[in-house]
Amino acid sequence: MTQKGMQKSYMCKDIRESCGLFGIFGVSDVAPLIYQGLFALQHRGQEGAGIVVSNGKKIRSAKGLGLVNDVFSKKSFDSLKGHIGIGHVRYSTTGTTRIQNVQPLVAECADGIWAIAHNGNIVNAKSLRRMYQESGSIFQTSSDSEVLVHILADPMYRRRPRRVERALEEMRGAFSFLLMTRDSMMAARDPFGFRPLSIGKYEDSYVIASETCAMAQIGATFIREIDPGELVTVNSSGLHSSTFSEKKDHFAQCIFEHIYFAHPDSNLFGRNVHSVRYQYGRQLAMEYPVDADIIIAIPDSGNSAALGFSQCSEIPLDFGFIRNHYVGRTFIMPEAQERRHWVDMKLAVLPEVVKGKRVVAIDDSIVRGNTSANRIKYLRKAGAKEVHVRISCPPIKYPCYYGIDFPTKKELIATQKTTEEIRDMLGADSLGFISLEGLLTPFENQKDFCTACFTGNYPVEIKSAQGKRTLERYST
Amino acid sequence: MTQKGMQKSYMCKDIRESCGLFGIFGVSDVAPLIYQGLFALQHRGQEGAGIVVSNGKKIRSAKGLGLVNDVFSKKSFDSLKGHIGIGHVRYSTTGTTRIQNVQPLVAECADGIWAIAHNGNIVNAKSLRRMYQESGSIFQTSSDSEVLVHILADPMYRRRPRRVERALEEMRGAFSFLLMTRDSMMAARDPFGFRPLSIGKYEDSYVIASETCAMAQIGATFIREIDPGELVTVNSSGLHSSTFSEKKDHFAQCIFEHIYFAHPDSNLFGRNVHSVRYQYGRQLAMEYPVDADIIIAIPDSGNSAALGFSQCSEIPLDFGFIRNHYVGRTFIMPEAQERRHWVDMKLAVLPEVVKGKRVVAIDDSIVRGNTSANRIKYLRKAGAKEVHVRISCPPIKYPCYYGIDFPTKKELIATQKTTEEIRDMLGADSLGFISLEGLLTPFENQKDFCTACFTGNYPVEIKSAQGKRTLERYST
Amino acid sequence: MTQKGMQKSYMCKDIRESCGLFGIFGVSDVAPLIYQGLFALQHRGQEGAGIVVSNGKKIRSAKGLGLVNDVFSKKSFDSLKGHIGIGHVRYSTTGTTRIQNVQPLVAECADGIWAIAHNGNIVNAKSLRRMYQESGSIFQTSSDSEVLVHILADPMYRRRPRRVERALEEMRGAFSFLLMTRDSMMAARDPFGFRPLSIGKYEDSYVIASETCAMAQIGATFIREIDPGELVTVNSSGLHSSTFSEKKDHFAQCIFEHIYFAHPDSNLFGRNVHSVRYQYGRQLAMEYPVDADIIIAIPDSGNSAALGFSQCSEIPLDFGFIRNHYVGRTFIMPEAQERRHWVDMKLAVLPEVVKGKRVVAIDDSIVRGNTSANRIKYLRKAGAKEVHVRISCPPIKYPCYYGIDFPTKKELIATQKTTEEIRDMLGADSLGFISLEGLLTPFENQKDFCTACFTGNYPVEIKSAQGKRTLERYST
Amino acid sequence: MTQKGMQKSYMCKDIRESCGLFGIFGVSDVAPLIYQGLFALQHRGQEGAGIVVSNGKKIRSAKGLGLVNDVFSKKSFDSLKGHIGIGHVRYSTTGTTRIQNVQPLVAECADGIWAIAHNGNIVNAKSLRRMYQESGSIFQTSSDSEVLVHILADPMYRRRPRRVERALEEMRGAFSFLLMTRDSMMAARDPFGFRPLSIGKYEDSYVIASETCAMAQIGATFIREIDPGELVTVNSSGLHSSTFSEKKDHFAQCIFEHIYFAHPDSNLFGRNVHSVRYQYGRQLAMEYPVDADIIIAIPDSGNSAALGFSQCSEIPLDFGFIRNHYVGRTFIMPEAQERRHWVDMKLAVLPEVVKGKRVVAIDDSIVRGNTSANRIKYLRKAGAKEVHVRISCPPIKYPCYYGIDFPTKKELIATQKTTEEIRDMLGADSLGFISLEGLLTPFENQKDFCTACFTGNYPVEIKSAQGKRTLERYST
Repeated sequence: MTQKGMQKSYMCKDIRESCGLFGIFGVSDVAPLIYQGLFALQHRGQEGAGIVVSNGKKIRSAKGLGLVNDVFSKKSFDSLKGHIGIGHVRYSTTGTTRIQNVQPLVAECADGIWAIAHNGNIVNAKSLRRMYQESGSIFQTSSDSEVLVHILADPMYRRRPRRVERALEEMRGAFSFLLMTRDSMMAARDPFGFRPLSIGKYEDSYVIASETCAMAQIGATFIREIDPGELVTVNSSGLHSSTFSEKKDHFAQCIFEHIYFAHPDSNLFGRNVHSVRYQYGRQLAMEYPVDADIIIAIPDSGNSAALGFSQCSEIPLDFGFIRNHYVGRTFIMPEAQERRHWVDMKLAVLPEVVKGKRVVAIDDSIVRGNTSANRIKYLRKAGAKEVHVRISCPPIKYPCYYGIDFPTKKELIATQKTTEEIRDMLGADSLGFISLEGLLTPFENQKDFCTACFTGNYPVEIKSAQGKRTLERYST
Repeated sequence: MTQKGMQKSYMCKDIRESCGLFGIFGVSDVAPLIYQGLFALQHRGQEGAGIVVSNGKKIRSAKGLGLVNDVFSKKSFDSLKGHIGIGHVRYSTTGTTRIQNVQPLVAECADGIWAIAHNGNIVNAKSLRRMYQESGSIFQTSSDSEVLVHILADPMYRRRPRRVERALEEMRGAFSFLLMTRDSMMAARDPFGFRPLSIGKYEDSYVIASETCAMAQIGATFIREIDPGELVTVNSSGLHSSTFSEKKDHFAQCIFEHIYFAHPDSNLFGRNVHSVRYQYGRQLAMEYPVDADIIIAIPDSGNSAALGFSQCSEIPLDFGFIRNHYVGRTFIMPEAQERRHWVDMKLAVLPEVVKGKRVVAIDDSIVRGNTSANRIKYLRKAGAKEVHVRISCPPIKYPCYYGIDFPTKKELIATQKTTEEIRDMLGADSLGFISLEGLLTPFENQKDFCTACFTGNYPVEIKSAQGKRTLERYST
Repeated sequence: MTQKGMQKSYMCKDIRESCGLFGIFGVSDVAPLIYQGLFALQHRGQEGAGIVVSNGKKIRSAKGLGLVNDVFSKKSFDSLKGHIGIGHVRYSTTGTTRIQNVQPLVAECADGIWAIAHNGNIVNAKSLRRMYQESGSIFQTSSDSEVLVHILADPMYRRRPRRVERALEEMRGAFSFLLMTRDSMMAARDPFGFRPLSIGKYEDSYVIASETCAMAQIGATFIREIDPGELVTVNSSGLHSSTFSEKKDHFAQCIFEHIYFAHPDSNLFGRNVHSVRYQYGRQLAMEYPVDADIIIAIPDSGNSAALGFSQCSEIPLDFGFIRNHYVGRTFIMPEAQERRHWVDMKLAVLPEVVKGKRVVAIDDSIVRGNTSANRIKYLRKAGAKEVHVRISCPPIKYPCYYGIDFPTKKELIATQKTTEEIRDMLGADSLGFISLEGLLTPFENQKDFCTACFTGNYPVEIKSAQGKRTLERYST
Repeated sequence: MTQKGMQKSYMCKDIRESCGLFGIFGVSDVAPLIYQGLFALQHRGQEGAGIVVSNGKKIRSAKGLGLVNDVFSKKSFDSLKGHIGIGHVRYSTTGTTRIQNVQPLVAECADGIWAIAHNGNIVNAKSLRRMYQESGSIFQTSSDSEVLVHILADPMYRRRPRRVERALEEMRGAFSFLLMTRDSMMAARDPFGFRPLSIGKYEDSYVIASETCAMAQIGATFIREIDPGELVTVNSSGLHSSTFSEKKDHFAQCIFEHIYFAHPDSNLFGRNVHSVRYQYGRQLAMEYPVDADIIIAIPDSGNSAALGFSQCSEIPLDFGFIRNHYVGRTFIMPEAQERRHWVDMKLAVLPEVVKGKRVVAIDDSIVRGNTSANRIKYLRKAGAKEVHVRISCPPIKYPCYYGIDFPTKKELIATQKTTEEIRDMLGADSLGFISLEGLLTPFENQKDFCTACFTGNYPVEIKSAQGKRTLERYST
């Protein structure tokens, strides 16, 4: 429709999550429910979506590039009849229109068809891929998720007990997996629990979702999170749990889910997202108090923290930015106009609110810094007397290898500049990033979180990340 | 793409505004600016959009059904070259895909081409239409706006001085008009000033917009509102003002613009929309105080009032509902699923926030009541102990003939039930509608507002609404 | 879908017909039949199509740009319910996407709605348009057809008997009209009968079509051609005929319909098109005999004449060119490739057939000459020893003002070069154009044909082409 | 666009060919040439198309469902830059929209990426597939072509000399393959040579195509057919030939290519298609002479034979049917209308031609018989006195396992009825099918053709069709 060449994404930050998963077993017509679930997970991936269902005999799928609303139609539902199904929303890292990579992947091996949906990043995918290619396997996607299918199909696994567990054991890195065969659904979380995945109940059926907001959307009830290292299998005889990894002495749940990705009404890693962000606001108010007239949020990810900051500091909250609800994924900015000046299609400043005021602006994170700088400029133009910036996230300094797509290190402003330099570049009167300690305050088991992007301490080694099996085969 | 038959609009209330206007005279390439302006006015009409430009010689247009983003493409801008231009967003009352009715209307009469964009409702359109048809004119749209072109083309007007003023004099009802010829742009507001229309400045050029938010979007500066009964003409010799009506002793500006339609960052009828709504919240807190634990808004139109209510009552604000930003104009709700239960695709309840709390929910208005009832049910299901509803709008009891499309009287809950009955139907613990006096409190000239939908006092008579000319012609 | 900028029409000659008309009165569900009829008339206009139907009360329409197959869908038929209907296929002279100009035009005047479909060219449209604009009418299309609606709406006509006849009397030039009101269908042919229009019978209902092939398509039976100057009205009381012009002493039927436009299975102006073209082939064989080995046609418009030439000359026919059936309206020719060499996507040469042969190639006409030159080059490359070209149309030297869109005079090769020069430019061994006498041989009333494009003798004067009414009004 | 549910293919017979292949090595920008080549092969597959190119480093692809014109756009060419490339047109046997099955298939194995395009049917695909799945391979398409990639990736082949030859050796059945790696193009024909495949030269580069018409389309010159059992490899050091099978004592080239599939201007199996069909016409005239007035073809596949019949019998040819050039792949036939009567959207009868005549109608084949019966009915309705049918193909009685998709045996009229019964069912005055001997007359090596669909003598056994390798592995 619109000219791809001119499309600009004004919706997302410069940070991107891999994916969202949703599955259900046991309702007469699952596709519409999966559709609704994926819709509620849309914020986890906007560039492609797929649904695969089974009626116990045949497996059918529909997938496409774009938003959930664009990919599926009434006709999709007509053909997707079944009582088991899994779905996926994703973004394509390359930005090109590679329909092949849209998940769930569907592949046939000796004992039937497998559908696989994945959230995360498998750090030893490359070596596993090479190994399987050496032994004659062919790969049809460029996705790291495909290796799992190959391990499952491998006779060394296929013919032995605990096949799926043993296959998952080979994986290193971050992964929440949703699998489906003709007659069962499986879900697993890596031993460190990087990515979220929960179980719920809808009528008599089981639901698996990346975030609880998707369960709420269809009226399902949250039961519990899948444990790190746990494989959950749902089939006609009910729900079964097994483990595929010894219990780690600590987990590495992604703190960035709470900071930015997850939906405020989701509960993740034991806590509600909105509440955590609210607490971040309070924490910021204590760490970086400031004498000011009003607190404003950068909507929407700054909303909860702004409320917390306001209620802790007793400085009144106001709405200094209004969000335009028609900003979709794309907006055509004619070149001529683009050259004129930076235009914020997403947020409008309210001069009535900020004029003559000392303003505290609360944002969830600073990545490159340009957008923030421009917004501060707008606040000043609208008459703000002072602009104090508080960020509910420590400075992001290191790349993530576990499923978050930050810009390159060179583009991350916090790897290049000190806080004072960033403040200066933003044109703010003061700037405060929440401390790492503050960030973990809301949680009891603080060691169960991954903070590698702030500290560089990576819980799973990147280079030598190899599975047991790899060595076995080559030592033979 | 999506199946039309299944499309459901979950975005709008059951209330619809006619239109939004945006024009600019004097910049080298106007189309991209009009596009941005219309984008900022998208909330005033989502079913069609059009842009007409002139380069002083040729007039070119592009229009289509759908959102601004869907209608225009890079290619549109390539062909829409000119330094004068007007644009329009609209909704089609019929709901059918009548591309013919999308404005600006373009028509050729003896002395050249006219483009016309209209916001409002001309109550004597039918009789004027009949009159012109009698004398041989043909009509190609079913829109009330088309009559103005016929009057302008009529030799009795065309050949006389003050042609446009005299043509506007014939109109009865609510209208803000934006007109364009090959070499000029004109803007007018009806003598009662029902609909907003403002002038601004962008670099050396003049901008006209329904709301000031559209000026802010392109970086233009607000100058003043067009006066009721004023015609403003912009051409190569600058901006000229004239009047086409004696000054009324009072105006009839639409209070519903402040209650619901207008964007919070717009200034209308002398006041900022967000500030007025904030004041409504304070007013509600005084009119209907309540002992409660938290204040929550029905986003987004309840946001400002909720803030006011909270700060006046000193009951803390919290975010009990989170809005899904991917709810677009349409959502496919598979029939099977639809039968299962009512699903709120737009707002998610936050159980963490409302559980065990006495909640005050602030909404901008109640029309049919069903959606509100369902949301209260959700709040209770999420654990709210008490739900008190406060509405920043009096009960809507009468139809609007001046450009707002309410449901039929039978569907308006307030015409059928008392407040107590509505409370009961909603399942709320208490319910309070702002008083009419409270509604006008923020304004100095309270008599300059139309409150017909609450009182039934219509400022312009509907039946005998005839223009001077009409009589003239028939008396001859 | 495809890139407009790269689209090339490889289907049509450089000659374009205005339109095709199809109407039916009296079947329970007319839209599907009109759709089929328009499909059979697709060769008369490929750039837009429309259908308007009436169920006796309401009038509904659907129109769009593109081929009949693209414009209408199952959904169109669902909404187009009625027992009266007219349809139209057209090409837009400007080449731009002006949906406004797609016919049938629908307009409301004092006594109801009129739908109008037109084939031809009204030479006094401009002055009529100016006159009506002077008196206050507005025009919404740039089409010459719109004036008829204005005359019909004019009280001077509207209130008098023989309204439609009197309105048609004002028209000068070439026109076949199909009109519809809520409860009747009308059809008219200009006094010279430039364009074809016929009546047929389908079950108990009447059918009107530009060509009889459209009747055959739905299984209707041809009754007769509408006479030049005749208005036929079909309503609930049956079919009525009237005249709106004194009988001319000669008609001016367009001979080019037989030469190129019409479908071979249509009967026009009293003769079958294929038979006439066959006869042209025989005539050419007599006028320009040649010693050769095989006769080949330039498919498909040269087929019939090639058969005739072969059977008259007793030189065997063969298929030297094969047509590619997938050449649609558009073909993307990548620029790089385009520069390489001229590529004939439509016709493939059969070297097996032409190698070493003296070939006679029969074509229907030569307009610019380039395509013909290239094809002769291909024949030689494929091994043809001699190439003799015979054209079943005299040299085209003058523009047509009656509905055919030839290239400009400067682009017409026959206005620039002698036959010998053309032969040289084509690279042919010999070249023969049928004589004007030969062209008229198949017809008894040879004076009833327009041959202006060959002779420059225009049957209706172009400049002073004014209607009676025009003078009346201005003399008053 | 159009409603899929209503789409009816009026273009094809009930017979479908698998595919068309086109490749080129050594031109600076291959994609536009492949596009043109595929366009010329469109008759071999209308439901999907793909192009894969390599620039020596990267491999890029574009594919889609639909016609070549719909699948590729200017943008496709922008991204498909390379000097090596292969393309494919196909129909999907299932009729569902399985984009996954559209070829060329692209897969990565240990030593790089392979692209594969296939025409034919591999009869031992199932067992090979099972074998590879057993050993751990996964399959992502349901296509028989995918097995070749797995064999190529198999270390037992990958690491040995003559890898591709040895892989091809495993295949049983009918196949013409086009393969591509980053730096080479390969082409192979099965040992029986069922499907055509030829080599040509374009400037300094090599071209491979299913039919020579695709070479002619781009201006390439035919060099020779690839031999049955030959593998041709083109890389930077030129063209290399090898064999992967001992020479069979006879081949089994598909005679149906000459009867129906191939384009008349193609040369296949040593003969030009049009010439062979012309000869079939002469043969029919000798085998089944008839006293008649005119010969007419069922266009277009009956054209050549009709010419031959006419010239042999000296009964004049005429055009009794005219083809509608706008019949595309789909046509919406509204249900109401469909029930009314059978409508021939593709061919129009010319009553002028057939009225009162004894007609001989020449068709290429009879499959189900219904369409033929209806057309004969139309001829009679148009006034034909006698209708004699002559078919340039013997009765089709047996299924094809080598790449042609006939209807099921039960639907083949010739398996159910005698010639006399068919004649009766068609309503013809006489009926003649060409004899098997007559069919082979045009060819010198008559034993080199497969006639299994007429005789049931299958050159490659279907059941026990296993490759050498299969046994090896299992005997170990």
